Amino acid sequence: MSNSLGKLFRVTSFGESHGRLVGAVIDGCPAGLELSEADIQPDLDRRRPGGGAVSTPRTEEDQADILSGVFNGKTTGAPICITIPNRNAQSDDYAEQRSIPRPSHADYTYYVKYGGHADYRGGGRASGRLTASMVMAGAIARKLLTAQGIEILGHAVEIGGIKTSARDYDTIRRDARFNATGCADQDAAKLMLQAIDRARRDGDSLGGIIEVIALGVPAGLGEPLFDSAESAMAQAFFSIPAVKGVEFGAGFAAARLKGSENNDPFIISEGRVQTDSNHAGGILGGITSGMPITARLAVKPTPSIALPQRSVNLESLSAAEMSVRGRHDPCVVPRAIVVAEAAMAITLCDLSIIAGTMGRVMA
Amino acid sequence: MSNSLGKLFRVTSFGESHGRLVGAVIDGCPAGLELSEADIQPDLDRRRPGGGAVSTPRTEEDQADILSGVFNGKTTGAPICITIPNRNAQSDDYAEQRSIPRPSHADYTYYVKYGGHADYRGGGRASGRLTASMVMAGAIARKLLTAQGIEILGHAVEIGGIKTSARDYDTIRRDARFNATGCADQDAAKLMLQAIDRARRDGDSLGGIIEVIALGVPAGLGEPLFDSAESAMAQAFFSIPAVKGVEFGAGFAAARLKGSENNDPFIISEGRVQTDSNHAGGILGGITSGMPITARLAVKPTPSIALPQRSVNLESLSAAEMSVRGRHDPCVVPRAIVVAEAAMAITLCDLSIIAGTMGRVMA
Amino acid sequence: MSNSLGKLFRVTSFGESHGRLVGAVIDGCPAGLELSEADIQPDLDRRRPGGGAVSTPRTEEDQADILSGVFNGKTTGAPICITIPNRNAQSDDYAEQRSIPRPSHADYTYYVKYGGHADYRGGGRASGRLTASMVMAGAIARKLLTAQGIEILGHAVEIGGIKTSARDYDTIRRDARFNATGCADQDAAKLMLQAIDRARRDGDSLGGIIEVIALGVPAGLGEPLFDSAESAMAQAFFSIPAVKGVEFGAGFAAARLKGSENNDPFIISEGRVQTDSNHAGGILGGITSGMPITARLAVKPTPSIALPQRSVNLESLSAAEMSVRGRHDPCVVPRAIVVAEAAMAITLCDLSIIAGTMGRVMA
Amino acid sequence: MSNSLGKLFRVTSFGESHGRLVGAVIDGCPAGLELSEADIQPDLDRRRPGGGAVSTPRTEEDQADILSGVFNGKTTGAPICITIPNRNAQSDDYAEQRSIPRPSHADYTYYVKYGGHADYRGGGRASGRLTASMVMAGAIARKLLTAQGIEILGHAVEIGGIKTSARDYDTIRRDARFNATGCADQDAAKLMLQAIDRARRDGDSLGGIIEVIALGVPAGLGEPLFDSAESAMAQAFFSIPAVKGVEFGAGFAAARLKGSENNDPFIISEGRVQTDSNHAGGILGGITSGMPITARLAVKPTPSIALPQRSVNLESLSAAEMSVRGRHDPCVVPRAIVVAEAAMAITLCDLSIIAGTMGRVMA
Repeated sequence: MSNSLGKLFRVTSFGESHGRLVGAVIDGCPAGLELSEADIQPDLDRRRPGGGAVSTPRTEEDQADILSGVFNGKTTGAPICITIPNRNAQSDDYAEQRSIPRPSHADYTYYVKYGGHADYRGGGRASGRLTASMVMAGAIARKLLTAQGIEILGHAVEIGGIKTSARDYDTIRRDARFNATGCADQDAAKLMLQAIDRARRDGDSLGGIIEVIALGVPAGLGEPLFDSAESAMAQAFFSIPAVKGVEFGAGFAAARLKGSENNDPFIISEGRVQTDSNHAGGILGGITSGMPITARLAVKPTPSIALPQRSVNLESLSAAEMSVRGRHDPCVVPRAIVVAEAAMAITLCDLSIIAGTMGRVMA
Repeated sequence: MSNSLGKLFRVTSFGESHGRLVGAVIDGCPAGLELSEADIQPDLDRRRPGGGAVSTPRTEEDQADILSGVFNGKTTGAPICITIPNRNAQSDDYAEQRSIPRPSHADYTYYVKYGGHADYRGGGRASGRLTASMVMAGAIARKLLTAQGIEILGHAVEIGGIKTSARDYDTIRRDARFNATGCADQDAAKLMLQAIDRARRDGDSLGGIIEVIALGVPAGLGEPLFDSAESAMAQAFFSIPAVKGVEFGAGFAAARLKGSENNDPFIISEGRVQTDSNHAGGILGGITSGMPITARLAVKPTPSIALPQRSVNLESLSAAEMSVRGRHDPCVVPRAIVVAEAAMAITLCDLSIIAGTMGRVMA
Repeated sequence: MSNSLGKLFRVTSFGESHGRLVGAVIDGCPAGLELSEADIQPDLDRRRPGGGAVSTPRTEEDQADILSGVFNGKTTGAPICITIPNRNAQSDDYAEQRSIPRPSHADYTYYVKYGGHADYRGGGRASGRLTASMVMAGAIARKLLTAQGIEILGHAVEIGGIKTSARDYDTIRRDARFNATGCADQDAAKLMLQAIDRARRDGDSLGGIIEVIALGVPAGLGEPLFDSAESAMAQAFFSIPAVKGVEFGAGFAAARLKGSENNDPFIISEGRVQTDSNHAGGILGGITSGMPITARLAVKPTPSIALPQRSVNLESLSAAEMSVRGRHDPCVVPRAIVVAEAAMAITLCDLSIIAGTMGRVMA
Repeated sequence: MSNSLGKLFRVTSFGESHGRLVGAVIDGCPAGLELSEADIQPDLDRRRPGGGAVSTPRTEEDQADILSGVFNGKTTGAPICITIPNRNAQSDDYAEQRSIPRPSHADYTYYVKYGGHADYRGGGRASGRLTASMVMAGAIARKLLTAQGIEILGHAVEIGGIKTSARDYDTIRRDARFNATGCADQDAAKLMLQAIDRARRDGDSLGGIIEVIALGVPAGLGEPLFDSAESAMAQAFFSIPAVKGVEFGAGFAAARLKGSENNDPFIISEGRVQTDSNHAGGILGGITSGMPITARLAVKPTPSIALPQRSVNLESLSAAEMSVRGRHDPCVVPRAIVVAEAAMAITLCDLSIIAGTMGRVMA
């Protein structure tokens, strides 16, 4: 429930933005997978506030520490606990938050749900920092999937209204990680960076759209009706802060196509059943079809902005002006890519174990 | 798993499109709710193929039959089993389906996942007819929510590319059910009907977008991270066949707004904390904020079309031409509205019981 | 939850003792299993009130009806709904129950939990009749296990204080079903029948102990810590009405042995690792060891007795005398054997699918 | 699953006996509970190897460290992670374990299930040390229950065949913790200590029986059929290593009583419905009745004994002699009492939140 995701490959998140640490327990990882911190760190590094223009300068080191579940360099089948310490958190910046909730943040709803007891510092549990839990679990999931020939690719397809032109998988794999936006189209990336820089200078923020692709997924994953591949992935995607929309394949665009346009003809290709187009995004009737899975996530603009905003004082129930102090990402899209990949990887691992295509012990 | 949805208010679906019946077991319904078939039937009728131009003429009577869980006219706290019989199914129309999967249907993926044993007649478990399970459970959920002052409103906001102009809740409540499209804008509805009629004559089909709104939802529902209000609803929404996209509040449009535009200022109104806009769709940090919940679902065009299509023969693994015989909805959007409402109602009941705002016995 | 058991092989029970029917939905059954009512009926018949002296003369026909999930004589992977109608229920016998709860029955606790709305007729949901749900699911589970070489054997080892002498598996398999007590020791069975007959004439009732054995279970089933083989089976066993104790292997007797007596030495036998004794009951550390699984269930004497008893009137909150009218089993042990077998079979199927030793499609 | 227990109050265990630490994540704890390490430590201390004669001299300090979920001295509603470090583990003692499994330990079954990858040192995940996870969670659960007027009492009722005479709750509360056996009968305790001492000198071990009692539990907890109070507690109890039997109320003894003896007459006492006896152990039809809940757990003798034993070499598949080196508890019953209390406390918290009798925010 709540802070656990998955049925047989199960991630439990704990920790707070400005508490002592952020952690994850991964239960159900097949035994016999070679695993060390070195497998986790690259994904954590991708999540970190990073390259100059794009992210907040808070320098978290985010060193993963595997506390359990690994013995002699391999997973044991026991739950794997991984943590990263919190450092360099300037909690003073957040003092005001207690009584004046930041607009479009979770401050107010956590305040109500938890009767005023929630840790409000830096967003507490609702902070983007918590996505590190998912990223750590995702790194393990990704390694398991790689052993099955499954690859997860994420990239930014839109930031601040600037769209990438469609890119093939090879380009995405090669280019998306080589600029600060995570966009595989270098021209668009340049414009995106300028837009982000402008937003930062204006004390404002931008949103965007992330695409995540899974290649090599076998047909047959997903348990319809209610644990369909789309249902399971969407549950994971919508747990990422700032995600307000999720679509698969043609998604919302499919709503404007005719059946004759949207239907994907079946063909025989490379000796197996494939489809000539992939408006379905690799999922039919909630079950993977063997075609690439494609999903897009709408990320809202960072709610933390320097510009003055209207809010209320929860104690006096009166109007209040506020502006979010501290330094914040003017656009979290680039950092959220690895989180979206993690969400897809975790879900695919879980569905693979449920469907029996991934064993409980590594071959 | 799989055919069950929800944790404490739990719906289990069973039955097939062309089997003997379609049914649902609703477990966890609070005791003491007055309930009879008359509470279920109106929603089932809304799901039925209906008014002239829009839907398939297959006349299913879809008479709900409550088999358990109700005693002396009230729910007992025991699981409620409701079924509707299948009648008038012309299975002959579907004989070809066995070896030649219909493009963009679940025929192929069910064939693979279930080793050729799936009931392929009329789409079997993957048929839109199975949404009746959700509608029956949704009717109960809706009645429970009504007792708490929560109202669920659904309407078509786009069909075949024709958009409704924004409508206030009163108009939606009053007008959306009074035409065959479920659109609250009578002018748009007229154009939609024409487009649907044209698609039918062309042997083609249309998709569209449904909006579902929940009014009166208290702040505090949703269990972040992974059972957030958005995660839980999205899981339910994506279990509806043909849904390929889900967004909350401003959704994908938020990705193009600046933070200063998208943020919803907090205000004091009617003596309580509200927001001046509602781009968040009533959910912040995965928890309901007390503002109206708004979700939009992208529905792909019906894959069953009369036009000839390319497919493959699964036995000979060779190319095959096919066209879907029988009569099919050229647009399922109008019928899917009540299903989307049901999905939201079921989820909100479950979250309400989990959060403790809905009791286990009716007051 | 609550009325569902299992994670990947999942049984949902519905219906009431004196409602229209009793049913079960079995979700997660592998596809491709040949299945018809004829597979279910023998176990249902074993559960029925039966042979002369032992059980209540209420003649329920208990004809299983498979409503979904089977196509062309085989399971499809879709949920299987099976029901049996209720007939011949004389509800008048139970009118008094409403306000005067029967001692050691669930009348009072259901009354409190469900705010007076529970269906009290014949015990409603708490009736032994509901075990038919488990038996129907158990018959399917047993067939799946048989295909894997796993056999479930149950027998009465004690009734009314009369103990069976230890019996080998062949004797149990051959003899336990051939008398009205389910005891494999014909001499003990004779004494048990006399004791039961005496209890009936006295208006009293007897309890006893059931042993259930699983042969051929592979090593490696069970997910420790909390879904250990013992935890999972005990959850199922304790859902059987009247069961008040569960032990595995030497069980409570182990508490009186020394380690040197209770420990089971490992040996190599038939080319594989076995143990020379089996005080562990085939489970070590929550995981099956490959040795026979043995469990014993303590069944309390039927609380429905003709003798006068002290109770209270729930409306006036005053003392009341009552005696249970109608005809009741003086000893449910014989009928509960097949229920205990079903509980073990369902659990082993679920654990097998989770561990990956049972596939999702029949080979 | 597996390493998580509970639905809304959920405990996830991680860590190994000889790894870096043992930990627990407690998700679903109501917000606003005052909590510090001082609340956890007393129960951890009771679990520790302790007083002279009874336990192993390994001096683990077992200092609880709360890593998340507490802010300003109170729980926040976020997951609470607590760990204790492992110190002073002499892994050399366990080297032999790798290829020669200890009889009646989990060495062999973990070896099979996890393909030889399990951490075998000191029993790894199957070690009694892991019960510290449950004890830490149990300490929190107990504090939540105390706020509701619910008290959990555990005591040893039998060790090495020496039985305590029946004791009233006041005596148990006062005396059970004041000797090294956890037995409330000082005369029996003396004999038990002698028997344990003798077993230690003989290189052997003893088992026993623990009774756990819950006082003040309201009527109405437990979700029948399958999440009945007995089912839920038994799942938790059987996850404790060495527990081989569980009974409620009269338990196995009820199997030998007549209905007229075992039935508990309802009476009006202190203005409310009670029963004159409590053979049911406070649970009727799977639902708590408001009477004290009583459960008894059979604990097998410690399988680690110094006496030589027969085993096998898993690599050569040949017979092998072995004797367990290192120092081990000759009787774990005294230390397991607090674990059994924890299991009951966790379960009752979960059932209370599910039933709605415990809120999500402390009043």
